[in-house]
Amino acid sequence: MRAVDLIRQKRDGGALADGDLRAFVAGVTDGSWPDYQIAALLMAIVLRGMSLDEAAVLTDAMVRSGRRLDLSDLGGTPVDKHSTGGVGDKTSLVLAPLAAACGALVPMMSGRGLGHTGGTLDKLEAIPGFRTRLSLDEMRRVLVAARCVMIGQTDEIAPADRRLYALRDVTGTVESIPLICASILSKKIAEGFGALVLDVKVGRGAFMKTEADARQLAEWLCGIATRNGLETQALLTAMDAPLGRAVGNANEVIESIETLKGRGPADLEALSVRLAARMLVAAGVASDDGDAERRVRQALASGAGLEAFRKIVAAQGGDPKVLDDYRRLPSVDHTEPWKAPRTGIVARLDAELIGRAAVALGAGRDRADAAVDPAVGIDIVAPVGTAVQAGEPVLVIACASADRIGAARVLLDRAIDIADTAPPPRPLVIGVIK
Amino acid sequence: MRAVDLIRQKRDGGALADGDLRAFVAGVTDGSWPDYQIAALLMAIVLRGMSLDEAAVLTDAMVRSGRRLDLSDLGGTPVDKHSTGGVGDKTSLVLAPLAAACGALVPMMSGRGLGHTGGTLDKLEAIPGFRTRLSLDEMRRVLVAARCVMIGQTDEIAPADRRLYALRDVTGTVESIPLICASILSKKIAEGFGALVLDVKVGRGAFMKTEADARQLAEWLCGIATRNGLETQALLTAMDAPLGRAVGNANEVIESIETLKGRGPADLEALSVRLAARMLVAAGVASDDGDAERRVRQALASGAGLEAFRKIVAAQGGDPKVLDDYRRLPSVDHTEPWKAPRTGIVARLDAELIGRAAVALGAGRDRADAAVDPAVGIDIVAPVGTAVQAGEPVLVIACASADRIGAARVLLDRAIDIADTAPPPRPLVIGVIK
Repeated sequence: MRAVDLIRQKRDGGALADGDLRAFVAGVTDGSWPDYQIAALLMAIVLRGMSLDEAAVLTDAMVRSGRRLDLSDLGGTPVDKHSTGGVGDKTSLVLAPLAAACGALVPMMSGRGLGHTGGTLDKLEAIPGFRTRLSLDEMRRVLVAARCVMIGQTDEIAPADRRLYALRDVTGTVESIPLICASILSKKIAEGFGALVLDVKVGRGAFMKTEADARQLAEWLCGIATRNGLETQALLTAMDAPLGRAVGNANEVIESIETLKGRGPADLEALSVRLAARMLVAAGVASDDGDAERRVRQALASGAGLEAFRKIVAAQGGDPKVLDDYRRLPSVDHTEPWKAPRTGIVARLDAELIGRAAVALGAGRDRADAAVDPAVGIDIVAPVGTAVQAGEPVLVIACASADRIGAARVLLDRAIDIADTAPPPRPLVIGVIK
Repeated sequence: MRAVDLIRQKRDGGALADGDLRAFVAGVTDGSWPDYQIAALLMAIVLRGMSLDEAAVLTDAMVRSGRRLDLSDLGGTPVDKHSTGGVGDKTSLVLAPLAAACGALVPMMSGRGLGHTGGTLDKLEAIPGFRTRLSLDEMRRVLVAARCVMIGQTDEIAPADRRLYALRDVTGTVESIPLICASILSKKIAEGFGALVLDVKVGRGAFMKTEADARQLAEWLCGIATRNGLETQALLTAMDAPLGRAVGNANEVIESIETLKGRGPADLEALSVRLAARMLVAAGVASDDGDAERRVRQALASGAGLEAFRKIVAAQGGDPKVLDDYRRLPSVDHTEPWKAPRTGIVARLDAELIGRAAVALGAGRDRADAAVDPAVGIDIVAPVGTAVQAGEPVLVIACASADRIGAARVLLDRAIDIADTAPPPRPLVIGVIK
């Protein structure tokens, strides 16, 4: 079928046949489909939708658009965790070493921060020398040495996704569940993963604002993954307030290390353990949830997770002494408190607004090609539910220069509520989808 | 608003504000909107629609994207006729000289054939020397000399439309009434026209297959034109069988001249007279339909229309002797009949299939950049309703080489029905919309 006829078919609400979807992805990959025809088809997909079967074929075609890794010689089922994006979400830095310490093979592929959400790669690169851009050979060497590697998407993997993703960003065609799922899953499958645990965030700071939307996304992800032979489970987790206490990059690395030392905030530790346990089950390393969680807690208590992280940092060129001396991480001299305007209880810390304030400080980026300052960020002194006196600090803002703090304060003033009573407690894990 | 936010607004079913529509057209014109963002917005418009008000603003913005002609010093209201495209539709070549002979100012702007429909420019260029691509100065000189000029869209006119039209053709975004109307009308308004008569075709050989669709298009065209100060009337006319007897280029020129000599087929003469009369009324040259039609018939009977056409041909560089000697037009030696397979009455001559057969012979084009052979074509010997004996010719096919005739015959075999009884007569003019 000619490109224009394929576009018309979807425009008129028809399903695209397997061969048509594969021809489209081939045209995206070899450049024979121009940007404008891709954009028109993407908009037709956004507005007309796709069936689960169409999305599964699209995903497979995107997998086959580039090289597909085979990690089977390394022993075990390669397992990854993917989050739909949050604020203060540094679970990857905690759970990847824990799962590796428990015997899982964890080739973790992460992204960068964009918009109000942070990115694992930006956090890792706050560690001096840490390289997230490895060749496939280097990636294998690190996996052999540490049973875990933490990298970005490699160039050889799913090239069709890279072109589609860049176009979707500028053509208003991001918001499509089939396209989101195909993008996430094609990369995971092409990297040779056999199992995947999804952390689908719900709430003010998440891409999905309602539980119904998050559940739908999780079900599509699991459905498409299953059709492509990828063992997948999803947790729906709350993302109304930031996860843990630190929002930034270097400060999130410190909080992750503290958590691996058994001194982390309760919410971050609980979610990291829960997700790591799911990874062990999905990869077949543990027999059931109870066994898995017991082993992860053991790796945490014994310090095996911390030592696994040390091994990963060293193997990827980072300075492993940061685990013992946080002064080796980038920092700024200037900090300012955000003080409670009244006496009461911290009732709301809006994750999206705090994330945007961190971007305003330079900790994140509004455009994909912007640089990040690893040293700046926001630390939560008084999390939701804490009683504060008027004038006491709720947050501490670490910034490089005073001129950026004004924009951040405007956002933070809207992000925080102090009330007479504490809000009702909300569970961190809202649901499980298999 | 950023381009991507404007796209999202329409994608989500919102209306675009005046300023947003003007910013879009400005970005199309100056190149600051890339093709892929234009394509995404066009698809969103196709699927989400536009209000009449949005379409009217879009039209005005497209008019202002280029130069706007002022023909007011030439005396009278400039009036044009526009057809939505048919097969064998050569009314422009008949009615433009007739209207000019009656005192109207007729700066006619036409297109080329595409798909199964023919184009006035291709037909005119069958006349040796005839130039349809004139500078604006040349156009004015011809108008002064002949009160009529027959040209294509000039480069300075509505540049935004040219870019949008090219993109729509390859992105499956042609089929949108607001976009179709804005494209047609912006060019007419920019050319300085004060009045426009529309011939909206309905039927098997037309863009609009049903009367309801054609009526809707006509109402949108009239509504948008009125909002932009252009006096517009529309006729809905039948396009099931080809108009007249000739389908091609040189043969259609001959049929047009014959009609101006009073020897044309009844349907072509009737529609040409009817449309020319509407033009006289719309331009204020005649006081009412009866007065107008009487004057057009007078110009036909007196030969004034034929002489006006001679003046136009000469003024545009063509050989005026073709009016007296058709051998001066391009021709081919090879002709073949299409013979009736049985005795009966010609019950169907499918305009679309005959148009596609003419394209297969080389008389039209499937791609905008293809060349046309002016000499080839199809002549109807036995129009619908004619009794034929088995073996008698229904059509005569004029072709340059035998290798192209096979593809044409496959289409023609499906295009013609011979039955026992004649089909019920169908009126040529189905409706009038003001």
